[in-house]
Amino acid sequence: MNRDQLYDEIRRKQSFLCLGLDTEMSKIPEHLRGDEFPFFSFNKEILDATHDLMVACKPNVAFYESMGTHGWTQFEMTVRYIRQQYPEIFIIADAKRGDIGNTARKYAETFFQQMDCDAVTVSPYMGIDSVTPFGYPGKWTVLLALTSNPGADDFQMLPTGNNERLFETVLRKSSAWGTAGNMMYVVGATRASMLVKVREIVPDHFLLIPGVGAQGGDLKEVAEYGLNSKCGLLVNSSRAILYADSTKRFAEVAREKAMEMQREMAGLLGK
Amino acid sequence: MNRDQLYDEIRRKQSFLCLGLDTEMSKIPEHLRGDEFPFFSFNKEILDATHDLMVACKPNVAFYESMGTHGWTQFEMTVRYIRQQYPEIFIIADAKRGDIGNTARKYAETFFQQMDCDAVTVSPYMGIDSVTPFGYPGKWTVLLALTSNPGADDFQMLPTGNNERLFETVLRKSSAWGTAGNMMYVVGATRASMLVKVREIVPDHFLLIPGVGAQGGDLKEVAEYGLNSKCGLLVNSSRAILYADSTKRFAEVAREKAMEMQREMAGLLGK
Repeated sequence: MNRDQLYDEIRRKQSFLCLGLDTEMSKIPEHLRGDEFPFFSFNKEILDATHDLMVACKPNVAFYESMGTHGWTQFEMTVRYIRQQYPEIFIIADAKRGDIGNTARKYAETFFQQMDCDAVTVSPYMGIDSVTPFGYPGKWTVLLALTSNPGADDFQMLPTGNNERLFETVLRKSSAWGTAGNMMYVVGATRASMLVKVREIVPDHFLLIPGVGAQGGDLKEVAEYGLNSKCGLLVNSSRAILYADSTKRFAEVAREKAMEMQREMAGLLGK
Repeated sequence: MNRDQLYDEIRRKQSFLCLGLDTEMSKIPEHLRGDEFPFFSFNKEILDATHDLMVACKPNVAFYESMGTHGWTQFEMTVRYIRQQYPEIFIIADAKRGDIGNTARKYAETFFQQMDCDAVTVSPYMGIDSVTPFGYPGKWTVLLALTSNPGADDFQMLPTGNNERLFETVLRKSSAWGTAGNMMYVVGATRASMLVKVREIVPDHFLLIPGVGAQGGDLKEVAEYGLNSKCGLLVNSSRAILYADSTKRFAEVAREKAMEMQREMAGLLGK
C-alpha cells in the first residue's frame, strides 16, 4: 500500500486508528480459551467488529511467539484473515527487529514474503545495514525513534553533538535511507511536545504513535503537534479496545471503544 | 548455567567457540533439502559432529522465522535436541529483541520458558525497560554494544558527552542493570582494538564476539585484548563451519573447521 492509498483510506474511514493486536491468553474472554486457535478466534471477532473504524492493524509478534509454534501459526492465520477479508487494512508486524545483512534480509522475507504484511517495526541501533534490507517495493519500515517508556531517557535523549539528541540524529540520518513513502517512525505519545521537534526533522513522514489509551497519551495534543497535510499519523490503541470487556459481549464493547476513538479522530481530521 | 559453570566448560573443552546456527535452505547440502525437517536434519548432524569442540551454540532466529511455522518448529526442535543430548552447551537465542514492559516479558517467556535457552540477544535502544524483563534466575541477557557492520558507525560511535561514545555509554549504564553473572555484550571482532575500551568499562563480563571467520576478524587479536581471568570471551563462527562443504561429508568437514578454531583457542587459553 502506498502513501496516497493509505491517506485515501484515512479520509474514507475518517480515522487514523491503528489497532494493536496484543493478544494474551490470560486476558481474552474465558469462553474462548478452550478453542483450538483461541488467539485467532479472538482476533477474528475483534476484527469483524472494528475493521471499518481503523486503517491499520498491528499484531505484536511477541505475544504469538511466546506460545511457540501454535502461537506463530495463529499470527500467520490472523495476517491471512485480514488480507483476505479486509485488504484495505495496513498491517504492521510489530517485531522491533534489529539485525544486519543476511539476517535482516531473512526478517524481511518473513514479514513481506512468507506473510503479506505491509510494514515491520525495526530498531535503529545497528545503523543503515539494519534498515535498508526492509526496502521492498510497496512495503514500509517503521523505525523506532522516540519511545514512550521511562527507559527511553537512557539513550534516546542523550546529546550527540550538533545540538541534537540521539532520537533526532536517528530521524535525520535515517530519513535519507528511505522516503516518506516507505518509512515511518515510532514516536511515543507520552511526549507530545516532542512532536514539534520530530516534525521539524521529518515533516512529511507518517508517525506511528503508541501510548494513547493505556499508556496515557492525549489524542488531541498528538493531533495538534503531529498532523500534516496527508494526516501523517497512525495512533495505536491496544488494551483499551481489546480488553474493554471480558464477557461474550467483548467484541461489541470493543467496537464501542474503537468508535469513541474514531469519532474523536474524525473531529480532529475535520479541522 | 552460571558463570563458573560456563568457565568450567571452557577449561574442560579448551574452547570458547560459539557455533552460530544460521541455517539456510539454499546453503545446506542438496541431499537434505527434501527431508521433512531439513533444518533440523542439518543442525543435528552438525551438532553431533562438533559438540565437543564448542561451549555455546547460537541459533539465529531470523533464519527459522523466515520459513514460517515450519521453521519455528525446527528452531524449537533444535533447542530441545541440544538440551537433551548436550546439556552442557550454552544456548543463545540470537533474536536481537528490543521491546518493553509486557512485550519484553513475552519475549523472555518465549526463549526462557517456552524454550529452555540460556540467553537471548537484546538491543539496547529502548533502555532499561527493554533489558530487565530478561532477568530470569540462571538466564542471561546478551546486549548489543558495538557491532561489526559498517552501519555501526551511524549511531554506536556518536559522542554522547563525558568523553564517551554511545556504545561506551551503553556498556557503562547497562552494566548497572545486571551483573557479570547474568549479562554479556556483543562486541564485533572487526574492531579488536576497541576491545581495550570495552574492557576498561566491563572488565569482568563475558563478550560475545561475532565476525571471526566470514566477517574477517582475527582470533589472536581478539584474545589479546578481550580475555579476562575467567576467559570472558565467546567467539562465534557460523558460515565458515556450517558451509565449509556441501556434499554428504559436510558434517565431517565442519568438524575439521571447528577443530582448527578449537586448537587455536586452546593455545590462546594456555598463555
